[in-house]
Amino acid sequence: MQPIKFENDVLLLIDQLKLPMQEVWVKIKTLEEGAKAIKDMIVRGAPAIGVTAAYTYALAFKNKPFSSDYANLVKETLNSTRPTAVNLFWAVSEMEKVAKFCKKNLYTTLLNHAKKIHADDITMNKKIGANALDLFPKKLKVLTHCNAGSLATGGYGTALGVIYSAFSKNLIEKVWVDETRPFLQGARLTAYELEKAGVPNTLICDNMSASLMAKGEIDLVVVGSDRIAKNGDVANKIGTYAVAVLAQYHKIPFYVAAPSSTIDFNIACGNDIPIEERAKSELGIFNGKQIVYDLDNIYNPGFDVTPNHLVSGIITEEKVHYYPYINSLKVCDS
Amino acid sequence: MQPIKFENDVLLLIDQLKLPMQEVWVKIKTLEEGAKAIKDMIVRGAPAIGVTAAYTYALAFKNKPFSSDYANLVKETLNSTRPTAVNLFWAVSEMEKVAKFCKKNLYTTLLNHAKKIHADDITMNKKIGANALDLFPKKLKVLTHCNAGSLATGGYGTALGVIYSAFSKNLIEKVWVDETRPFLQGARLTAYELEKAGVPNTLICDNMSASLMAKGEIDLVVVGSDRIAKNGDVANKIGTYAVAVLAQYHKIPFYVAAPSSTIDFNIACGNDIPIEERAKSELGIFNGKQIVYDLDNIYNPGFDVTPNHLVSGIITEEKVHYYPYINSLKVCDS
Repeated sequence: MQPIKFENDVLLLIDQLKLPMQEVWVKIKTLEEGAKAIKDMIVRGAPAIGVTAAYTYALAFKNKPFSSDYANLVKETLNSTRPTAVNLFWAVSEMEKVAKFCKKNLYTTLLNHAKKIHADDITMNKKIGANALDLFPKKLKVLTHCNAGSLATGGYGTALGVIYSAFSKNLIEKVWVDETRPFLQGARLTAYELEKAGVPNTLICDNMSASLMAKGEIDLVVVGSDRIAKNGDVANKIGTYAVAVLAQYHKIPFYVAAPSSTIDFNIACGNDIPIEERAKSELGIFNGKQIVYDLDNIYNPGFDVTPNHLVSGIITEEKVHYYPYINSLKVCDS
Repeated sequence: MQPIKFENDVLLLIDQLKLPMQEVWVKIKTLEEGAKAIKDMIVRGAPAIGVTAAYTYALAFKNKPFSSDYANLVKETLNSTRPTAVNLFWAVSEMEKVAKFCKKNLYTTLLNHAKKIHADDITMNKKIGANALDLFPKKLKVLTHCNAGSLATGGYGTALGVIYSAFSKNLIEKVWVDETRPFLQGARLTAYELEKAGVPNTLICDNMSASLMAKGEIDLVVVGSDRIAKNGDVANKIGTYAVAVLAQYHKIPFYVAAPSSTIDFNIACGNDIPIEERAKSELGIFNGKQIVYDLDNIYNPGFDVTPNHLVSGIITEEKVHYYPYINSLKVCDS
């Protein structure tokens, strides 16, 4: 699945707010339209936001010559769309470098660089998938949490990239998909894109995986990550830590798939990773309808941290890193 | 909170389908209305269904003399409302015995017996609550899953009875309420009734309790049960087993509160407890709106089984039973 396309000077984004029941492609032709699409979460997932920002940066210079003032405006406009997506700032900065040193054919040059950022993202995801193949000695039943798939990236995905890669080698028996409350990225996005890719999958509530593990119905867990500390502690969507503890209890390997850029060498361990607390309404209001009595008495952390000793391995585009991560991951930093 | 009332020849049930956003009391005056209320799940929770059936049985004889044929019709009508609620069959059978041997004032006699069944249920819940007090050496932060409260019983509750009892002795710091996907009994009912009772509570998604445990935010877990095997294996709402494993990993005591009648001495161990698989639409459709792409690829077990070694104790109206349960529980059978 390709959630981001560029055709005839138009950026096309599949509207992730309307998925899975409607497949609506939003057309982006200007800086303002691109910035709004990121802000409104028509596109989400750190790598996908980065790719979208890169194309939007190029579009901003379609009929404009370079000037420092305008380049600053473009940068500010894009960077202010989402506060935490590191890939966004990185992509904008990459595009800015190209713009500053471009001598002629500014728009075409920027567009080619955006296409390169997009292609590189997919290539990196495919390398992650290829590096994970050794973890599949035979056809396995795999559990994943949240959406680390095509829809979160330029295409293909990290955790789902591992699954697509194994599926292409006939090494996937089935995928169990956690619905991933409260925002239901698993139910809305992961089940949808696995279905579209023809991968056998079954949706469950987050609280059902434990009894499936006890019954031997899960052979391996693979999830993505939002940030990895230097020691291999992993921040990911809320509920990931529970899956990791349950996997260890049932002696099921628990893998994290992420590009090396997800490793934050400024963060010594998981305790230092800030956890975003999100709006109570995400739990209390569903499809515009209030479902709990008191909207104040709700706690909604967006992420949790899984300590390194619960992580069987971290699959990057380089290789599979193993505990103790402090020795292995620092290679990526060199 | 009193979800079932009987006033001036009318049975009043709070409509649990409309909670928590509307408090609507449904008036029941006839056999047909009572049977429909049970079938439509206006009342749910095994003990609450039993109490409702008892009152409805009495109402069926308000202006009717006893006859075997009519008594059979009443029994059939009530017993056919729900397939698995053991308390339903028990309550109907108790009422039938009274009806058969009643010499005069049939309706009044039946009504008094229904009131006794109702009062006995509350008394038993209060005994469970009192027996649990020793488990609270100080003010604790408690987690519960699903709804084993006033709304599931004649009033007061089993797991929530423990919490109300401890709260009345100033031994509850706060209650964490699992929302309990897919049917959201925690979000809709438990958070609501704790709020009404003035007990400090915070609603979380089922996948959030693990990180709260890791942070030391949960001191004790207490849940109800739908069926307990002879060896102390406990069947309860899906997700309970996950909570039990997570509690053990974090060294947090995990208690089950239930009347002795929940212990099924015909079931040797948890493997023999049948697990109801429920409609896929419970996950896939929310408030009438489809939220997942493919409604077929869904798995929805209603319950799971927690093995006895994960259960710190089983609190009944008799006492707190401890592992190995096979020695302790059989006393209840004698």
